[in-house]
Amino acid sequence: MATEEINILPESYPMVGGDGPYSYAKHSTFSGGIVDATKGMVFAGIAEKLDLKSLGVYSSSTFQIADLGCSIGPNAFTAVQNIIETVEQKHLEAENQNHSTLEFQVFFNDHSNNDFNTLFKTLSPDRKYFASGVPGSFHNRLFPKSSLHIVHSSTALHWLSKVPKEITDSKSPAWNKGSIHCTGFVKEVATAYSAQFSNDFESFFNARAEEIVPGGLMLILIAIRPDGIPMSKNLEGIHYDFLGSCLYDLAKMGLISEEKVDSFNLPIYYPSLEEFETLIKRDANFSIERKNVFTNPLMHKAYCAEFWAGLLRAALESVFQQHFGSPHVVDQMFKYYSRELEQNISFIMEGKTHDRIELCIILKRN
Amino acid sequence: MATEEINILPESYPMVGGDGPYSYAKHSTFSGGIVDATKGMVFAGIAEKLDLKSLGVYSSSTFQIADLGCSIGPNAFTAVQNIIETVEQKHLEAENQNHSTLEFQVFFNDHSNNDFNTLFKTLSPDRKYFASGVPGSFHNRLFPKSSLHIVHSSTALHWLSKVPKEITDSKSPAWNKGSIHCTGFVKEVATAYSAQFSNDFESFFNARAEEIVPGGLMLILIAIRPDGIPMSKNLEGIHYDFLGSCLYDLAKMGLISEEKVDSFNLPIYYPSLEEFETLIKRDANFSIERKNVFTNPLMHKAYCAEFWAGLLRAALESVFQQHFGSPHVVDQMFKYYSRELEQNISFIMEGKTHDRIELCIILKRN
Repeated sequence: MATEEINILPESYPMVGGDGPYSYAKHSTFSGGIVDATKGMVFAGIAEKLDLKSLGVYSSSTFQIADLGCSIGPNAFTAVQNIIETVEQKHLEAENQNHSTLEFQVFFNDHSNNDFNTLFKTLSPDRKYFASGVPGSFHNRLFPKSSLHIVHSSTALHWLSKVPKEITDSKSPAWNKGSIHCTGFVKEVATAYSAQFSNDFESFFNARAEEIVPGGLMLILIAIRPDGIPMSKNLEGIHYDFLGSCLYDLAKMGLISEEKVDSFNLPIYYPSLEEFETLIKRDANFSIERKNVFTNPLMHKAYCAEFWAGLLRAALESVFQQHFGSPHVVDQMFKYYSRELEQNISFIMEGKTHDRIELCIILKRN
Repeated sequence: MATEEINILPESYPMVGGDGPYSYAKHSTFSGGIVDATKGMVFAGIAEKLDLKSLGVYSSSTFQIADLGCSIGPNAFTAVQNIIETVEQKHLEAENQNHSTLEFQVFFNDHSNNDFNTLFKTLSPDRKYFASGVPGSFHNRLFPKSSLHIVHSSTALHWLSKVPKEITDSKSPAWNKGSIHCTGFVKEVATAYSAQFSNDFESFFNARAEEIVPGGLMLILIAIRPDGIPMSKNLEGIHYDFLGSCLYDLAKMGLISEEKVDSFNLPIYYPSLEEFETLIKRDANFSIERKNVFTNPLMHKAYCAEFWAGLLRAALESVFQQHFGSPHVVDQMFKYYSRELEQNISFIMEGKTHDRIELCIILKRN
């Protein structure tokens, strides 16, 4: 195998581990809504598009599933359980049996600084599969050739392998001064983010093309922007803008320097539907089998400021931590953000012109 | 697959995690000596006994290796590296090639409360294999049927799945009052320990028989007692006896109750060579291909009391922790043990009549 593929160590920012008040385990219900909402799509997609015979899966075979970017919450377990139930049912029908003799091996993947200890301790003792954790970036190879039957990845592909270099360069027209993400309002910044996403997408898809058996499926859940709508008009973008303005407030108070804030950017990008589809269509190894665009059913619950602050902290704390250093500064920052958010929650929610939109796409390895 | 096999949750006592002063990572050199000493045996055993063609391993295959009871230290990485180098060389010779195209997938297994986070963070970025962590007891099934080519287990099989029930029962003739391990001097206690080891051995071997492909190898390193020599006459047993007498001293000081010490026993058993071989010969699924009995080359280094105390604490802290509860008590206990050991080190080392003896055995799945 190509050793250099393993040598690339991309930036990695795990969700907050453990089960403390700021942990992802305590703030993963929103993402859970997405997994729950796609249960029917996943069921229909597998039932219709997976051909066990052509995969060579018979009575005493092992069926191998990988969840990429699993983090630690219960969502990965739910997603995998949904897949297993569907494959098992399909297998029973195909073999005309009452009791499935298929064995399932499931690989939970995330960066090596993900809290696998918590993941492993919370695996259900009643699970009907052999569990395994795979540390490493999904932008590289993680598994042997043609070893996986289904790959699943939920709410993870928006993480870039790094912040595009040019947006932190004060001499570049793409310098992203005054913002911490891809607002969508500065063309050069948007181009740089989009190019990085495209590169990462290619790495991800090339690796999966090697690992998934021909006829195997890839189920991807990713938040997208409606075509033509800039990020700052979406709920997520509005939160990021507000988070950015809080950082500049803290700089004015002297807690951090303005230069430090200027050089901070989120390694996150939400492509538009068109952009994402164009990238997939360019890839000759996979074909689109099903596609559903939907809104998280939990989107319209009247969540309070505390909820949003908790969710953003669980997901983003480590990004801030790595850039700003001291845990004390990061703690102060999130507390300030939480307080400010509380006072401005209606203003923020009213400023939103578009919901966060989810894409569930099912691909087949040709 | 049989769900009930996964449901059994045996007692589990991980090595001390992290990289702190009491961590196994800092106290694994002694076990490392055993792994290093067997490099030649492993090399010769694989070179002579592994038949890649009959395993169906060709140019673009995946070769699957599991290390059972891996803990967190670097020893598991060294052992796996030794195996991979040997298989790779054998493959090159068989295929008459200069560059191996075999891909290796390695599964590191230990209990789900093992510190996998540390294990994953210390994986070499230059490794030439796909790494994976598998949480669970090796007394149960951990892998799909016929999925492994080589299983390795070093200094792990002496851990029992539980303390034999009767030795903690004050009404049983096997009550182990006054000792914390199988000294070898009370017949009923020795019988109870031996029976538990035999049960656990059977569970381990039945699970592996399902998981290893026919023709696949199992390499086991385990400390054994010379035939007819009781445990209390070995270095390890002398340490356990001394540890036990320290516990009774602490009870006299009022730090813990005597009843609490009476009910404490180490879930550890070192079989005699004859006992171990009899168990293997009873198992029709495996045949003995090679066998080497040796002493750890590091055995005769003049280690100080601090070294032994560190080693025993790294390996046993969690057993004491689970029984005696408070981390403060366990910390006090090991500090007392360390101090006492320092004052008695010559006495202890002189009392030793036998070295700890290691067995390296190579088995083939029929």
